[in-house]
Amino acid sequence: MPTPLCADGKLRPTYEDIHKLIDRSAAYIKADFDPDLMVLISGGGLIPGRIMRSFLKRPSELDPTRLRNIPTQAIGLSLYEEVAGMVEGSIGKSVTRTQWISEKALLGHKDPSKKVEEGKDAGGLVGKKILIVDEVDDSRTTLQYAYQELYNDVRQALSSMSEQERAAVPATKFACFVVHNKRNIKKGKLPILNENNHIAGDGAAPANNNQPVERIENGIVEGIRYYAGEDTENEWIAYPWESEDITEHNRLAADARKKAGQK
Amino acid sequence: MPTPLCADGKLRPTYEDIHKLIDRSAAYIKADFDPDLMVLISGGGLIPGRIMRSFLKRPSELDPTRLRNIPTQAIGLSLYEEVAGMVEGSIGKSVTRTQWISEKALLGHKDPSKKVEEGKDAGGLVGKKILIVDEVDDSRTTLQYAYQELYNDVRQALSSMSEQERAAVPATKFACFVVHNKRNIKKGKLPILNENNHIAGDGAAPANNNQPVERIENGIVEGIRYYAGEDTENEWIAYPWESEDITEHNRLAADARKKAGQK
Repeated sequence: MPTPLCADGKLRPTYEDIHKLIDRSAAYIKADFDPDLMVLISGGGLIPGRIMRSFLKRPSELDPTRLRNIPTQAIGLSLYEEVAGMVEGSIGKSVTRTQWISEKALLGHKDPSKKVEEGKDAGGLVGKKILIVDEVDDSRTTLQYAYQELYNDVRQALSSMSEQERAAVPATKFACFVVHNKRNIKKGKLPILNENNHIAGDGAAPANNNQPVERIENGIVEGIRYYAGEDTENEWIAYPWESEDITEHNRLAADARKKAGQK
Repeated sequence: MPTPLCADGKLRPTYEDIHKLIDRSAAYIKADFDPDLMVLISGGGLIPGRIMRSFLKRPSELDPTRLRNIPTQAIGLSLYEEVAGMVEGSIGKSVTRTQWISEKALLGHKDPSKKVEEGKDAGGLVGKKILIVDEVDDSRTTLQYAYQELYNDVRQALSSMSEQERAAVPATKFACFVVHNKRNIKKGKLPILNENNHIAGDGAAPANNNQPVERIENGIVEGIRYYAGEDTENEWIAYPWESEDITEHNRLAADARKKAGQK
């Protein structure tokens, strides 16, 4: 069920709406991609990513009867906001990193301080199925930046490895999930692998669920799988975590649902 | 209003309960501490921290008519979970860092690549009022580790600065916020400055709201202010973001509220 418009033209998903959207999306993403780890774009991706984590658990390597969370990293990017220490002219012109993945988190398997047992996962991003998570895909600029930079980091990490080491890791794969995708003209570009089946929102298989063709280039699958909880028009989305009065937010959301004939 | 017990003995706060708890706590924390930045302990602190951020906005330095978010960093610690690349014996014995603050985020003002205008905030943790955020304070081990390590990082950063540079920054201060504090015997220790007034939950001033005495040692205020949204007994807290069925979670929460005579 699409999020209904409120009387003031805004979309007001509730926490429950978003939790359910992610629940349904996760089932699809788990079957289609089964991520090894998540990279959350802060601050928007923090809440969706934390909810998503609950639905992407895996059996523990140490005790397969128990489920464990998949590893999660947060990255900070700043497009819209001023960053302390930047002069006025440089704001908005480019994306600024405010937090990033450490070399250790990128190259877990190469860290000599870690004791890695034969055949066990050594951590790191290299050789993993990486799911990038954000709140909304508006202009696509943040997502493009996050993907490009992570791709470049993995590429560089791979080139620092020996031939033998590279042969031992599977191809690194990228996917991204956003709660809402706006049907906008996108300023940012992403080489989307599954262009016509990116919506997992209602849990139904998308119209075209053929597996995309994966082409491996230098140890990385080229392109990115794209998943969105819901497509929207270019409306203002008022997220519950931004609300200064959550009771009123929920009242307006319930009004909109009633008016749209949803229960 | 305290979170009422469900029939199975668990506490089931809803997203709305937690949003309101943070709303009320933030008003108190803003007046009592007014943090410059937040450090979120991943995964638990991600959702509370993202909500908290909405209530701790400040007027922009560039355009004071607009509000801006305060900077946010995520750190990853692992106590309970296995970490990829660790052998079995080392798990649970010590806290493992899975993500941390970069040197740049610690020492923003010293980064020569940033153009800092005279009198402007140069970023970084040094000289700031830092609010550490987590979900629940159970054994206090994670909080103790996060505080100690951040304290040591700031201390080391300060000692790398010149006398003149140190004199130019205010004393660094620490505080922490958890949504729930369990009335447990705490394995971890924190030098709490405001021992008897740590609850901001209902928005009312705590019984004793005398300002704690602050003693500055090497550029850092010794001790940490402690805020909890709510104190609980040693009950199992089922957070909504862990729920595999949010409709059922909310139904059980509503039942418990009704039984407790809350609306």
